Amino acid sequence: MADAALFEFLHTEMVAELWARAPNPSPGGQKMSLSVLEGMGFRVGQALGERLPRETLAFREELDALKFLCKDVWTAVYQKQMDGLRTNHQGTYILQDNDFPLLVRMAAGPQYLEEAPKFLAFTCGLLRGTLSTLGIKSLVTASVTTLPACKFQVVIQRA
Amino acid sequence: MADAALFEFLHTEMVAELWARAPNPSPGGQKMSLSVLEGMGFRVGQALGERLPRETLAFREELDALKFLCKDVWTAVYQKQMDGLRTNHQGTYILQDNDFPLLVRMAAGPQYLEEAPKFLAFTCGLLRGTLSTLGIKSLVTASVTTLPACKFQVVIQRA
Repeated sequence: MADAALFEFLHTEMVAELWARAPNPSPGGQKMSLSVLEGMGFRVGQALGERLPRETLAFREELDALKFLCKDVWTAVYQKQMDGLRTNHQGTYILQDNDFPLLVRMAAGPQYLEEAPKFLAFTCGLLRGTLSTLGIKSLVTASVTTLPACKFQVVIQRA
Repeated sequence: MADAALFEFLHTEMVAELWARAPNPSPGGQKMSLSVLEGMGFRVGQALGERLPRETLAFREELDALKFLCKDVWTAVYQKQMDGLRTNHQGTYILQDNDFPLLVRMAAGPQYLEEAPKFLAFTCGLLRGTLSTLGIKSLVTASVTTLPACKFQVVIQRA
């Protein structure tokens, strides 16, 4: 029934609440809210990662872990698979979602593009957190060119 | 897979974040955080309510709406049904959950009882919001006597 939408509703409220409470509407205040959202996503991603079946915790290849994110994790959270995965085979991965659920409800005009980052920060953290539980350190950023499509860039941090 | 736990993880992060940001640890600051959580729950409940099949939007009896909360809404959010529903037939309903999922992870000692309200506020709002979408105004409070059991008291507000 409604459970698939629950995460989306809660995420919307969380973003709205953090923005309402941001100490000021300056770029600095917004950046802090983004980093708070990213941190929440990271911890949720870690917790999700810890619930994964043990066999998945030992991927032989980094690429397997990324495929796992695109398929299993994405389906668990967004009820769909990622639409594309590319890599330069040097530790950088581009994950493409053509209809990212958290952006779908946004009106599609260029004037809304600047609103997009706050709907992506939590998910960047979620990807980073899940990878972290899989033993992979990464930096994750996101970009939007045409709503509601977006790309997540994962850069693996070698020790 | 992990999707059933997603709401729980996100709720935990939300509570932690609001408490970390409370202007001060005084009873006043905590009360404000509780009311913020209740408000978020209310809006999520409204949104859930709006997704319900149309036929459910016109319950003939108030009691039918409450049964719907206990069965369908609870299952959608917590993957279980409420364990008990009592009423004085004068507009007050007691909903009993013997293993409320958001309290299950808390250690069961009397010293943790005072922590319980912050894990109940969102759900009080959720119940109030769903009822509101069904056209029923209410006040919802919660109490805990033995973790992880809790009771939600719904008092219908007549016009």
